Amino acid sequence: MSKYDVLTIGNAIVDIISRCDDNFLSDNGIVKAAMNLIDAERAEALYAKMGPAVEASGGSAGNTAAGIANLGGKAAYFGKVAEDQLGEIFAHDIRAQGVYYKTKANGTFPPTARSMIFVTPDGERSMNTYLGACVEFGPEDVEADVVAEAKVTYFEGYLWDPPLAKQAIIDCARIAHEHGREMSMTLSDSFCVQRYRDEFLELMRSGTIDIVFANTQEVLALYETEDFEAALDKIADDCKIAAVTMSEKGAVIVKGDERIYVKATKIVELVDTTGAGDLFASGFLYAYTQGRSLEDCGKFGCLAAGVVIQQIGPRPSTSLPQAAKDAGLI
Amino acid sequence: MSKYDVLTIGNAIVDIISRCDDNFLSDNGIVKAAMNLIDAERAEALYAKMGPAVEASGGSAGNTAAGIANLGGKAAYFGKVAEDQLGEIFAHDIRAQGVYYKTKANGTFPPTARSMIFVTPDGERSMNTYLGACVEFGPEDVEADVVAEAKVTYFEGYLWDPPLAKQAIIDCARIAHEHGREMSMTLSDSFCVQRYRDEFLELMRSGTIDIVFANTQEVLALYETEDFEAALDKIADDCKIAAVTMSEKGAVIVKGDERIYVKATKIVELVDTTGAGDLFASGFLYAYTQGRSLEDCGKFGCLAAGVVIQQIGPRPSTSLPQAAKDAGLI
Repeated sequence: MSKYDVLTIGNAIVDIISRCDDNFLSDNGIVKAAMNLIDAERAEALYAKMGPAVEASGGSAGNTAAGIANLGGKAAYFGKVAEDQLGEIFAHDIRAQGVYYKTKANGTFPPTARSMIFVTPDGERSMNTYLGACVEFGPEDVEADVVAEAKVTYFEGYLWDPPLAKQAIIDCARIAHEHGREMSMTLSDSFCVQRYRDEFLELMRSGTIDIVFANTQEVLALYETEDFEAALDKIADDCKIAAVTMSEKGAVIVKGDERIYVKATKIVELVDTTGAGDLFASGFLYAYTQGRSLEDCGKFGCLAAGVVIQQIGPRPSTSLPQAAKDAGLI
Repeated sequence: MSKYDVLTIGNAIVDIISRCDDNFLSDNGIVKAAMNLIDAERAEALYAKMGPAVEASGGSAGNTAAGIANLGGKAAYFGKVAEDQLGEIFAHDIRAQGVYYKTKANGTFPPTARSMIFVTPDGERSMNTYLGACVEFGPEDVEADVVAEAKVTYFEGYLWDPPLAKQAIIDCARIAHEHGREMSMTLSDSFCVQRYRDEFLELMRSGTIDIVFANTQEVLALYETEDFEAALDKIADDCKIAAVTMSEKGAVIVKGDERIYVKATKIVELVDTTGAGDLFASGFLYAYTQGRSLEDCGKFGCLAAGVVIQQIGPRPSTSLPQAAKDAGLI
């Protein structure tokens, strides 16, 4: 018995979500579909230009933990907020979903991280993230007993942006492997891959990471190629399992010479892609830690991603087990 | 020329919205479909029991102002937040919608008001409001030039809950009438009517108020009767114009002996009734200040209410003018 199925670690962020047209993105120098890192000054300037918004707890790995708990898995989360109202909201929401979360908040400055997310008419999201309190997350926030008792510890590549988090991850990997657990990461974003390509490859090749999540753009960026098949062959060499999402084409699970293709869920209305990759990881890791086949893991991933992109916000407000039952997966 | 079509005044609140089943309401002593006033201690206890939520700027009169601005009307708003993150969110959202809003924030304690809104599977919302900084709103917050330049000044009956707001409203009414403007109010909630029945009737009978908004339950509570027609006759005597909403039966506009019935908008899916009455007032007052007939005012009201109940949250995230065009109203 393990106390947790999955521990996820990431930047603890509250999303501020608004709709805009494509011109707004180009007029304001926002890279579409990407995670744009911004400082406090730019955050203020951009917020002044943003239309009326709604707020929802987010953060890539936070969304993944929430999705796992929604599915009925035992999830835990590490991530740093400040002692402020957005921090209270973040902590409330992840705990209310049933996720274990006790990372110490960081005083009042810098404030809790927020990401201004602009959703264009095509449903694509473009993020503008001010990291705030996340820059204080470090090795002292690693709860060793939680790592030791989690079947899989998963973290976001975005954690290479704040200065201290990578050391915390290295510590987690050591503890996890000492206890016979597995480590997993998502490459997060193709620009993030460009920033930290060599370090990510080293994490994989050194065996620090067992299971890697990526989308098409990220895996191409990782190997600096336009040849998707070649990139899949390379990632197969570099880690034990890779789960690569391909938007409306579904996903492919790569393990050695195996290539398991899974179709995307049929979408009635694409509303907001925020959380798609995060929820794919939720579904995959939930099924993986239940001992399901890799094909089923991929199916659970596509199912959860399909639910979240048909609503506003990064965490499903509906029952994922019900959706899984409807799809014949449970 | 008037600088503003409508000035609205109310408790400035951020909504915290979650879904629950009916048992949750009864288990926690929440009166269904009502606005339940709560103190800080109960707010904390209830939040601890609330599921994962999303946040959106709300406040009845704030929603009405946002709806008027969405329709293309010139709107202004008075309401008190604190100097905190929720206060910044409230101020941002109402200004970003194009509403004039300059009420001075109130330091950091008490914090910005929030209402925990539980939406049951039938789409009904049950509110639990902690007034926070709203208790500091008073006569010093009346911007006389704004009142003088607004065709209609509208406020929520909820303002009788905080201690100082009613004097501000009396001041506004004097300024408005001195400048040949009209005053309007909503009765807000049937329990609010029970708390302040005599005062609300006095506001109407003294001519302090010209136009009254109410729903069926509120007008019945006002006259302590079960006879809707009798209540309509009484309200016709007590004010110049009454606009009474009747949920799925639409609305009736009452002016002297006139009774103008307007059908409700056809609803594809009832998602969340939050903001229905507020947006009815938006549509009505927008059309009223454009010089449209009372029947058209009612139609605009039903249209705007119909839009907001088919989404989560109290302010339409879509274009009301487009909806009005589609309905042949513009």
